[in-house]
Amino acid sequence: AGDAEAGKAKSMICASCHGVEGISAIPGYPHLKGQDAQYLINALKAYKNKERTGGMAQVMQPMAMMLNDQDMANLAAYYSQLK
Amino acid sequence: AGDAEAGKAKSMICASCHGVEGISAIPGYPHLKGQDAQYLINALKAYKNKERTGGMAQVMQPMAMMLNDQDMANLAAYYSQLK
Repeated sequence: AGDAEAGKAKSMICASCHGVEGISAIPGYPHLKGQDAQYLINALKAYKNKERTGGMAQVMQPMAMMLNDQDMANLAAYYSQLK
Repeated sequence: AGDAEAGKAKSMICASCHGVEGISAIPGYPHLKGQDAQYLINALKAYKNKERTGGMAQVMQPMAMMLNDQDMANLAAYYSQLK
Protein backbone atom coordinates (compact mmCIF):
# COMPACT_ATOMS: atom_id res chain seq x y z
CA ALA A 1 0.00 0.00 0.00
CA GLY A 2 1.09 3.61 -0.39
CA ASP A 3 2.59 5.80 2.31
CA ALA A 4 0.99 9.26 2.17
CA GLU A 5 3.87 10.92 4.08
CA ALA A 6 6.43 9.61 1.60
CA GLY A 7 4.04 10.61 -1.16
CA LYS A 8 3.84 14.15 0.16
CA ALA A 9 7.63 14.45 0.03
CA LYS A 10 7.70 13.04 -3.48
CA SER A 11 4.91 15.39 -4.60
CA MET A 12 7.14 18.46 -4.59
CA ILE A 13 7.97 17.72 -8.23
CA CYS A 14 4.27 17.52 -9.09
CA ALA A 15 3.26 20.69 -7.27
CA SER A 16 4.66 23.06 -9.89
CA CYS A 17 1.88 22.01 -12.30
CA HIS A 18 -0.71 20.29 -10.12
CA GLY A 19 -0.62 22.90 -7.34
CA VAL A 20 0.50 22.69 -3.73
CA GLU A 21 -2.59 20.84 -2.45
CA GLY A 22 -3.26 19.13 -5.76
CA ILE A 23 -5.47 21.95 -7.01
CA SER A 24 -3.93 23.07 -10.27
CA ALA A 25 -3.93 26.78 -11.13
CA ILE A 26 -3.30 26.09 -14.82
CA PRO A 27 -6.24 25.23 -17.13
CA GLY A 28 -5.66 21.85 -18.74
CA TYR A 29 -3.72 20.45 -15.78
CA PRO A 30 -5.89 18.11 -13.71
CA HIS A 31 -6.63 18.58 -10.04
CA LEU A 32 -5.28 15.60 -8.10
CA LYS A 33 -6.75 16.45 -4.71
CA GLY A 34 -9.12 13.69 -3.55
CA GLN A 35 -8.77 11.76 -6.80
CA ASP A 36 -9.23 7.97 -6.73
CA ALA A 37 -5.93 6.30 -5.72
CA GLN A 38 -6.17 3.38 -8.14
CA TYR A 39 -6.95 5.76 -10.99
CA LEU A 40 -3.85 7.85 -10.18
CA ILE A 41 -1.70 4.71 -10.26
CA ASN A 42 -3.28 3.57 -13.54
CA ALA A 43 -2.71 7.00 -15.11
CA LEU A 44 0.94 7.17 -13.99
CA LYS A 45 1.57 3.67 -15.34
CA ALA A 46 -0.12 4.58 -18.63
CA TYR A 47 2.23 7.55 -19.01
CA LYS A 48 5.25 5.41 -18.01
CA ASN A 49 4.24 2.70 -20.52
CA LYS A 50 3.64 5.33 -23.22
CA GLU A 51 0.00 4.29 -23.44
CA ARG A 52 -0.87 7.95 -23.18
CA THR A 53 0.50 10.11 -25.97
CA GLY A 54 -0.28 13.50 -27.47
CA GLY A 55 -0.80 16.83 -25.68
CA MET A 56 0.38 16.91 -22.10
CA ALA A 57 1.55 13.28 -22.30
CA GLN A 58 4.86 14.62 -23.64
CA VAL A 59 5.32 16.35 -20.29
CA MET A 60 3.99 13.53 -18.11
CA GLN A 61 5.81 10.58 -19.70
CA PRO A 62 9.30 11.59 -18.47
CA MET A 63 7.85 12.50 -15.06
CA ALA A 64 6.26 9.08 -14.68
CA MET A 65 9.43 7.36 -15.88
CA MET A 66 11.23 8.75 -12.82
CA LEU A 67 8.79 6.93 -10.55
CA ASN A 68 8.85 3.31 -9.41
CA ASP A 69 5.74 1.39 -8.28
CA GLN A 70 6.23 2.36 -4.62
CA ASP A 71 6.58 6.06 -5.55
CA MET A 72 3.34 5.81 -7.51
CA ALA A 73 1.53 4.10 -4.62
CA ASN A 74 2.83 6.75 -2.20
CA LEU A 75 1.77 9.65 -4.44
CA ALA A 76 -1.64 8.05 -4.97
CA ALA A 77 -2.05 7.57 -1.21
CA TYR A 78 -1.07 11.20 -0.58
CA TYR A 79 -3.32 12.86 -3.17
CA SER A 80 -6.34 10.61 -2.65
CA GLN A 81 -6.50 11.36 1.09
CA LEU A 82 -6.43 15.15 0.61
CA LYS A 83 -9.82 16.57 1.59
CA ALA B 1 -18.23 27.61 -24.05
CA GLY B 2 -19.96 24.66 -22.45
CA ASP B 3 -23.53 24.56 -21.18
CA ALA B 4 -23.62 22.82 -17.79
CA GLU B 5 -27.36 22.03 -18.05
CA ALA B 6 -26.90 20.28 -21.39
CA GLY B 7 -23.83 18.62 -19.90
CA LYS B 8 -25.86 17.31 -16.99
CA ALA B 9 -28.35 15.69 -19.36
CA LYS B 10 -25.52 14.18 -21.38
CA SER B 11 -23.79 12.89 -18.24
CA MET B 12 -26.34 10.14 -17.65
CA ILE B 13 -24.17 7.85 -19.77
CA CYS B 14 -21.11 8.70 -17.66
CA ALA B 15 -22.81 8.26 -14.30
CA SER B 16 -22.79 4.46 -14.39
CA CYS B 17 -18.99 4.49 -13.94
CA HIS B 18 -18.17 7.99 -12.74
CA GLY B 19 -21.02 8.17 -10.19
CA VAL B 20 -24.11 10.36 -10.05
CA GLU B 21 -22.31 13.52 -8.85
CA GLY B 22 -19.05 12.60 -10.52
CA ILE B 23 -17.76 10.72 -7.48
CA SER B 24 -16.96 7.24 -8.73
CA ALA B 25 -17.68 4.27 -6.45
CA ILE B 26 -15.37 1.99 -8.41
CA PRO B 27 -11.60 1.99 -7.69
CA GLY B 28 -9.70 2.88 -10.85
CA TYR B 29 -12.46 5.10 -12.25
CA PRO B 30 -11.61 8.77 -11.77
CA HIS B 31 -13.77 11.23 -9.88
CA LEU B 32 -14.89 13.99 -12.26
CA LYS B 33 -16.53 16.28 -9.70
CA GLY B 34 -14.79 19.67 -9.64
CA GLN B 35 -12.13 18.56 -12.13
CA ASP B 36 -10.55 21.22 -14.39
CA ALA B 37 -12.78 21.80 -17.44
CA GLN B 38 -9.96 22.11 -19.97
CA TYR B 39 -8.39 18.91 -18.66
CA LEU B 40 -11.68 17.04 -19.09
CA ILE B 41 -11.90 18.25 -22.71
CA ASN B 42 -8.26 17.30 -23.35
CA ALA B 43 -8.79 13.84 -21.86
CA LEU B 44 -11.97 13.18 -23.87
CA LYS B 45 -10.23 14.30 -27.06
CA ALA B 46 -7.24 12.07 -26.26
CA TYR B 47 -9.56 9.07 -25.95
CA LYS B 48 -11.44 10.04 -29.14
CA ASN B 49 -8.13 10.45 -31.03
CA LYS B 50 -6.86 7.13 -29.63
CA GLU B 51 -3.96 8.94 -27.96
CA ARG B 52 -4.89 7.08 -24.80
CA THR B 53 -4.65 3.30 -25.07
CA GLY B 54 -4.36 0.39 -22.67
CA GLY B 55 -6.37 -0.32 -19.53
CA MET B 56 -9.60 1.62 -19.24
CA ALA B 57 -8.94 3.39 -22.54
CA GLN B 58 -10.64 0.46 -24.26
CA VAL B 59 -13.83 1.46 -22.42
CA MET B 60 -13.43 5.22 -22.81
CA GLN B 61 -12.49 5.39 -26.49
CA PRO B 62 -15.95 4.35 -27.80
CA MET B 63 -17.63 6.61 -25.23
CA ALA B 64 -15.63 9.61 -26.38
CA MET B 65 -16.27 8.78 -30.02
CA MET B 66 -19.99 9.32 -29.40
CA LEU B 67 -19.29 12.90 -28.33
CA ASN B 68 -18.81 15.97 -30.50
CA ASP B 69 -16.88 19.08 -29.38
CA GLN B 70 -20.02 20.78 -27.99
CA ASP B 71 -20.92 17.66 -25.96
CA MET B 72 -17.40 17.62 -24.54
CA ALA B 73 -17.57 21.33 -23.65
CA ASN B 74 -20.99 20.81 -22.02
CA LEU B 75 -19.83 17.80 -19.98
CA ALA B 76 -16.68 19.67 -18.92
CA ALA B 77 -18.79 22.69 -17.87
CA TYR B 78 -21.11 20.45 -15.89
CA TYR B 79 -18.52 18.41 -14.00
CA SER B 80 -16.12 21.27 -13.34
CA GLN B 81 -18.80 23.37 -11.64
CA LEU B 82 -19.86 20.60 -9.25
CA LYS B 83 -18.82 21.56 -5.73
